[in-house]
Amino acid sequence: MTPKRFLSTLCLTVLTLVVMAQPKAKYVFYFIGDGMGVNQVNAAETFLAACEGRIGMKPLCFTQFPYLGLVSTYSASSGVTDSAAAGTALASGVKTKNAAVGVLPDLTTPVNSVAWHAQQHGAAVGIATSVSVNHATPAVFYAHVPERHAYHEIGRQLPLSGFDFFAGSDILKPQPKEGGKDLYQQAADKGYKIVRGYDEFLQQANRQKKLILLQPLRDSKQNDYAIPYKLDRKPENLSLEQITQAGIRFLSERQKERNGFFLMIEGGMIDMACHSNDGAGFIHELIDMDSCVQIAYEFYKKKPDSTLIVVTADHETGGLSLGRGKYALHLEKLLHQKMSFFAYPRHLAALRREKGSAFSWDVVRQDLKENFGFWEGLELTEAQTERLHKAYEQLVDDSSENKKSLYNSVDPVSYTASQIMDEHSLIGWQSNGHSNGFVGVYAIGVGAEQFAGQIDNTEIPLKIMRAAGWE
Amino acid sequence: MTPKRFLSTLCLTVLTLVVMAQPKAKYVFYFIGDGMGVNQVNAAETFLAACEGRIGMKPLCFTQFPYLGLVSTYSASSGVTDSAAAGTALASGVKTKNAAVGVLPDLTTPVNSVAWHAQQHGAAVGIATSVSVNHATPAVFYAHVPERHAYHEIGRQLPLSGFDFFAGSDILKPQPKEGGKDLYQQAADKGYKIVRGYDEFLQQANRQKKLILLQPLRDSKQNDYAIPYKLDRKPENLSLEQITQAGIRFLSERQKERNGFFLMIEGGMIDMACHSNDGAGFIHELIDMDSCVQIAYEFYKKKPDSTLIVVTADHETGGLSLGRGKYALHLEKLLHQKMSFFAYPRHLAALRREKGSAFSWDVVRQDLKENFGFWEGLELTEAQTERLHKAYEQLVDDSSENKKSLYNSVDPVSYTASQIMDEHSLIGWQSNGHSNGFVGVYAIGVGAEQFAGQIDNTEIPLKIMRAAGWE
Repeated sequence: MTPKRFLSTLCLTVLTLVVMAQPKAKYVFYFIGDGMGVNQVNAAETFLAACEGRIGMKPLCFTQFPYLGLVSTYSASSGVTDSAAAGTALASGVKTKNAAVGVLPDLTTPVNSVAWHAQQHGAAVGIATSVSVNHATPAVFYAHVPERHAYHEIGRQLPLSGFDFFAGSDILKPQPKEGGKDLYQQAADKGYKIVRGYDEFLQQANRQKKLILLQPLRDSKQNDYAIPYKLDRKPENLSLEQITQAGIRFLSERQKERNGFFLMIEGGMIDMACHSNDGAGFIHELIDMDSCVQIAYEFYKKKPDSTLIVVTADHETGGLSLGRGKYALHLEKLLHQKMSFFAYPRHLAALRREKGSAFSWDVVRQDLKENFGFWEGLELTEAQTERLHKAYEQLVDDSSENKKSLYNSVDPVSYTASQIMDEHSLIGWQSNGHSNGFVGVYAIGVGAEQFAGQIDNTEIPLKIMRAAGWE
Repeated sequence: MTPKRFLSTLCLTVLTLVVMAQPKAKYVFYFIGDGMGVNQVNAAETFLAACEGRIGMKPLCFTQFPYLGLVSTYSASSGVTDSAAAGTALASGVKTKNAAVGVLPDLTTPVNSVAWHAQQHGAAVGIATSVSVNHATPAVFYAHVPERHAYHEIGRQLPLSGFDFFAGSDILKPQPKEGGKDLYQQAADKGYKIVRGYDEFLQQANRQKKLILLQPLRDSKQNDYAIPYKLDRKPENLSLEQITQAGIRFLSERQKERNGFFLMIEGGMIDMACHSNDGAGFIHELIDMDSCVQIAYEFYKKKPDSTLIVVTADHETGGLSLGRGKYALHLEKLLHQKMSFFAYPRHLAALRREKGSAFSWDVVRQDLKENFGFWEGLELTEAQTERLHKAYEQLVDDSSENKKSLYNSVDPVSYTASQIMDEHSLIGWQSNGHSNGFVGVYAIGVGAEQFAGQIDNTEIPLKIMRAAGWE
């Protein structure tokens, strides 16, 4: 044996001993950015640099994690997955058909998620999202249904999981069709305390064994589907950061009687914004999710020998392209946008109701100036102004047909404003649906080295279970 | 010190000794897929699986390399780079302005490439591409000009490099404007033997010290800009695989008097195909480059302790989206395409010349059937047939104006055929230009571990130099 060979062998032996002695991941954070393709991540970092007036990228927290992989996302039924099939792969390590939640492609055989395995091994479990708690991505961790839109049935299965913590905007379709207890009551019967808003959470957290955190009850304009976009958020709204803090706080307490925790946090509105082709919208959502990763990273820094953070996405949404043919990109222009393209059509409709016959082009023009910086920060061409003016005329002309279908289900003014934001920022979109782009996986902590290289989405939960010893 | 801490410290010490004793990369392969964004790689793997009749991905050679990173590509002047600025970053580790070749953003200060450093450290050097040897990507390794289209000046600098081996389609703009020796003669004066085609290479290789391999001289239809697309290749054409084999053979011989080699190989026509929004075209080019990586990988397997292979790209081209909104992808449909959309317009023009007044819709229809499987393997809707028929009428109607500008510089029939291929395969494109998508970097061999994680394109040549000890 040569001296070099001897040294190598010795090193390997010592390494093996060290690895065998290594602790498992006791605290696992699993972030899923819905619709967060690699271009979406690039856009957020490019935007952050553009805000500083420079070309380049300013790193997010999670892109600086030491391990990075590229993840394929196709489903059992299609080259382009939906969130249900991709979520089932990310939760349970199996490919299934689009629309299926937590079942094999036969649509009946249930599969157990990493959250279930965590629970079986004594860990406290939390499932959190910025959309409803019975939407596809959270659902794949606890429910088993052939079709993701069976919200009531998914919500019925939620408390049966026995998981410790849930958080999101609300529970969709709480009322049973044929009478009987609603989903809130069904959850309460299983020992879940439903709290609304972060303040109520803080009051109740220490007294409860199982908890569901939802957004505060508001007026009839409440959107059960999701908490407000970061761009539209008011101080009284529940935020994904608060949800993350609540999850960590609640599970940290619960795990004292148990053995560690598993917390899944979905940035669910990156996807919603990309479905609406809303550049500023998705970028702010992505940065918002990164702030939540930062909170988990602070936890990791205190317990680096027992924590694992994995950040990934279920698929790409929108067929996003950073560049439209010109060799330029101006994401700094998105700074002018003050409201999401989810909120703006609703805001404009309210403005129209409020103004009545005084809902003039001048009123709309002033409103566009305030919300998108048009004609002020963003200089518009005459043609762009003309398109907005025409869109306004179409909006107030109630005789024009098929307005909705022509404008992607929003009013013509909002649609045209969103197109003009893209033309200025030089963002392009292929569609309002998903694409088969790779997504990234980013990991730090115990077992994080498994997440390097090109992998399939089905491998991720298995690697998490290996890191945590939940196999 | 605890036993675990003691073991860790011992291990680190031993590891340090082993690392210090590790050999450097003596043989370095640097593959650059021009325009090869991560979606392009995904498309190739998805296509290979689709050819086997299944949803999923069949791995290329390079995506199985043990180290993978994501690379940012923006230039000093723009969020969307061109090949000159990106190439300069990949060759010399500095950001420069778009269009600049081997100079700092002041457009005058030259920067030395990794190839130059390799030469300084005694390695044999080869620069190879499927496009012309004085095109931007090969040029950044040996030339210093403020503007990439200065082909003649770049070609003048080529033999001044003293590098051992060049290969590509040809030398663009060989004739000096004001008389004097052409670039072929200038190269010969510096000791370069110019050989045309692989057969002549094989005859000459052992007798020459410096060599430039170009494609065989053909008739007036010769395309100096590039070797034929993989899809259009005839047995007598020079291929990128032959270029790779020639490079390895020549440099392996040359390095016996020297100290290792550095071989850059550009898959230059992935970019060309993406600029034309040619799905089948770029996928076959990418798979072709992967075959060349496979050749390098066979070399690596013989000398794993002294070889490094790095595969990356300069930027994304086309804003490619795998999916157009429907939750489906049908890349298997691209199997019907028998000719690139570079060759087809030329083929159609030749057919028109040949047929004269007999260039009927039936003739064109038959030709489309043969080359794209329309109405045979690929069932067309009535609307698609109608669009092709109209395009034919526009083509033969010499009175129609602005035909070229309407159809992206190709004839209306070719343009419409390419659109229909996209509609069937469900590939989407944002533009005919570049975008700011991430590109991958894939590495195996000595020093390959440096290429994991999210990095900037400027880091790559520095990491190569570190692996090879060419700092």
